[in-house]
Amino acid sequence: MDRLPLFPDTTKVENNVLTIAGQDLNALAKTYGTPLYLYDRATLDNALADYRSALKKHYPGRSEITYAGKAFLCLAIAQWTSMNGLWLDCTGEGELAVAVKAGLERGHVLVHGVNKSPADLRAAFRHAGTIVVDNLTELESLVRLQPNSQLPDPSFPNLWLRLQPGLAVDTHAYTQTGQGGSKFGMTPAEITEAAHVCRQNRLPLTGLHFHQGSQFKDPEPLKAATELAFELAKEIGLPDDWDFCPGGGWGAAYHEDDLPAPPIEAYVKFTASEAVKACQKHGLTLPRLHLEPGRSLVARAGVALYRVGAVKQRGDRTWLLTDGGMADNPRFALYGARYSCLPVTGVERAPAGKFSIAGPYCESGDVILEDLQMPEIQVGELLAVPVSGAYHLSMSSNYNGARRPAVLWLDKGKARLIQRRETGDDLLQRDLGL
Amino acid sequence: MDRLPLFPDTTKVENNVLTIAGQDLNALAKTYGTPLYLYDRATLDNALADYRSALKKHYPGRSEITYAGKAFLCLAIAQWTSMNGLWLDCTGEGELAVAVKAGLERGHVLVHGVNKSPADLRAAFRHAGTIVVDNLTELESLVRLQPNSQLPDPSFPNLWLRLQPGLAVDTHAYTQTGQGGSKFGMTPAEITEAAHVCRQNRLPLTGLHFHQGSQFKDPEPLKAATELAFELAKEIGLPDDWDFCPGGGWGAAYHEDDLPAPPIEAYVKFTASEAVKACQKHGLTLPRLHLEPGRSLVARAGVALYRVGAVKQRGDRTWLLTDGGMADNPRFALYGARYSCLPVTGVERAPAGKFSIAGPYCESGDVILEDLQMPEIQVGELLAVPVSGAYHLSMSSNYNGARRPAVLWLDKGKARLIQRRETGDDLLQRDLGL
Repeated sequence: MDRLPLFPDTTKVENNVLTIAGQDLNALAKTYGTPLYLYDRATLDNALADYRSALKKHYPGRSEITYAGKAFLCLAIAQWTSMNGLWLDCTGEGELAVAVKAGLERGHVLVHGVNKSPADLRAAFRHAGTIVVDNLTELESLVRLQPNSQLPDPSFPNLWLRLQPGLAVDTHAYTQTGQGGSKFGMTPAEITEAAHVCRQNRLPLTGLHFHQGSQFKDPEPLKAATELAFELAKEIGLPDDWDFCPGGGWGAAYHEDDLPAPPIEAYVKFTASEAVKACQKHGLTLPRLHLEPGRSLVARAGVALYRVGAVKQRGDRTWLLTDGGMADNPRFALYGARYSCLPVTGVERAPAGKFSIAGPYCESGDVILEDLQMPEIQVGELLAVPVSGAYHLSMSSNYNGARRPAVLWLDKGKARLIQRRETGDDLLQRDLGL
Repeated sequence: MDRLPLFPDTTKVENNVLTIAGQDLNALAKTYGTPLYLYDRATLDNALADYRSALKKHYPGRSEITYAGKAFLCLAIAQWTSMNGLWLDCTGEGELAVAVKAGLERGHVLVHGVNKSPADLRAAFRHAGTIVVDNLTELESLVRLQPNSQLPDPSFPNLWLRLQPGLAVDTHAYTQTGQGGSKFGMTPAEITEAAHVCRQNRLPLTGLHFHQGSQFKDPEPLKAATELAFELAKEIGLPDDWDFCPGGGWGAAYHEDDLPAPPIEAYVKFTASEAVKACQKHGLTLPRLHLEPGRSLVARAGVALYRVGAVKQRGDRTWLLTDGGMADNPRFALYGARYSCLPVTGVERAPAGKFSIAGPYCESGDVILEDLQMPEIQVGELLAVPVSGAYHLSMSSNYNGARRPAVLWLDKGKARLIQRRETGDDLLQRDLGL
């Protein structure tokens, strides 16, 4: 079955039926309804182990892994990061609320954001160990937040400066971030100025950060950006145990044509060795290397289950109409993302042709996938869409009154509800009426 | 000020400051925070009056206006439709929950949906006067829901059949719906079969419906679709007081280059006269004509207020970074929609060049507008983005932990909170943890 490597590590086909972590998916769908999202803990743990062993093997210095909350954050995931000693990257006050509720250690909370509001900065001061400064206006606000600018404040979070390296990775334009025209980060001249402001105000500047984009498979652009970051680190002067974070964004395979999946070890090896080389070149001490994976940790751990409600033949296209779509997964509409799928029962039936899957929402962009080889699918069948763990639910909406799906955590033979399905009452809870 | 016609009817510039419905927007932003959405009741009322007077002038038969809930639905808007005797189009159980809470008369509730779930159909049976049948599988489910198929059931909702006319209007591919390959509705052959099923099971089939797309300005494709619908109406046989609905989707002007806005009267006149002509041609009685406007009623009534948090010069682009963006308005990311904007204070300052506006989220698709002539904007200024009433909040997300904005209803000199701002606690309310 050439699609199985897209599914979680615990996926099996037994008696022609798909199981994940030993679970009967038909029974889960019956109990919890569809659309239903599943997260397989073993797959998350394995991906994390891949990162850790690759860092151990290829980077001689200290390192940390920061989970990118933007990929998918909920209380359970935040708890998982905490249990595993990961850092957690939060964008602003909303994600910080989740980190706080999960009881993350303050030193493991890092705050990102291209335009942090005053409330974001106040929350970051209270709950975060590190703030990644995006721009000079933000830095001025931080200076004002420091109670006594003549003395270094021990409770002041560490600051890293976000560099715009002027170079993005190869990916969809919407998920490129490092290019010269982008809204993210500071130019080299602004970094120099920001470092000066930090020195003047005795702010604890400890590191440099950049991010070149998300869902990339070729790490080559990291080379020039790393070189530039280390050149700047030398120029501005940083503590011996400085922090260096070349972001995250390593890609996942979404479709069998993308297989084999981009190997985590290759990415870590490239990143680590570029950092080591740049250190030697500039005579710098080895920084603490921070990697910020989101998608490459969590995407393949997640599976979406949908029920087929109708089948339509339209010209040479056959639409399978499911009970979820762009409201829980807008990635086709936003990026033209290309997905795969397997039916839960009768997995090994022979392909009957190409099928397309659309959701129930009032829009032609509401597509999950197009033109995938599949067996003949009947109304009522359960479909499993792999690689659904990242940037689905975090971007989900209530379009057409959609209520967001239930989410299950599959671990050690148990399925645990970690987010209950939204209800009609939930949709009305902020409403006051006339 | 060539942009003012994009704003609500009650918008004024007084002492170089923008006001809407007599409200001090700076004070509202201070009280309720930003991003903040405003809906001006007078603009909604005026657009509705335009529809009603055009129907009275151009259509000799009975008519109804159905508000398309998908554009923006909340308790207050549902109450407004009820107070004004509008019908309300609900897609499935979620939107029905809002209609029920608002106390809409059952006969005024219409249910749409390309793949209605069993729960959607049960809710429609309980709360709706009309169900628009999308496909034959759905019709089979409806037959099974009829308690005694030998007798017409007086509590059974009226059924309309949704025709796929094989022809879309000119708009973005994602918002085209009438084209031959689309997932929506039934082909003429399926309509004939569906009508047969209705007759056999004595289901109350009363009408035909089609929809060709949304945000169009040229009504010409309605002609051929209307002609096809009436041909089918004649063929399948419908009651003398039958229902005909050629959908909605009439466009709005989003940018000054789109002005003057597509006139509601021209659309209604075209639609009504095509219906009258088709009646005469096929010797049919005049149907009750149903129009289904969403955007053309509500888009211009809505304004989004954002606060600028940082300004960045990047090559020849100047980014104004605001506290809202794709999480409350994904229309640039989804459709490349082109917006305009005015600063709230100092409206009449001379233009200083072209500016682009991006939100605070971790994505380059998080753009509100690009390259708009504006005066020099300072950090801290309040910006007003017009034509924000439709398909913003209904498609909004919690991406990056964004909490959805507060919404105000401006009416008779008062600003009333109709949706409170989401909180960090709201983000966690479905979470159960490990």
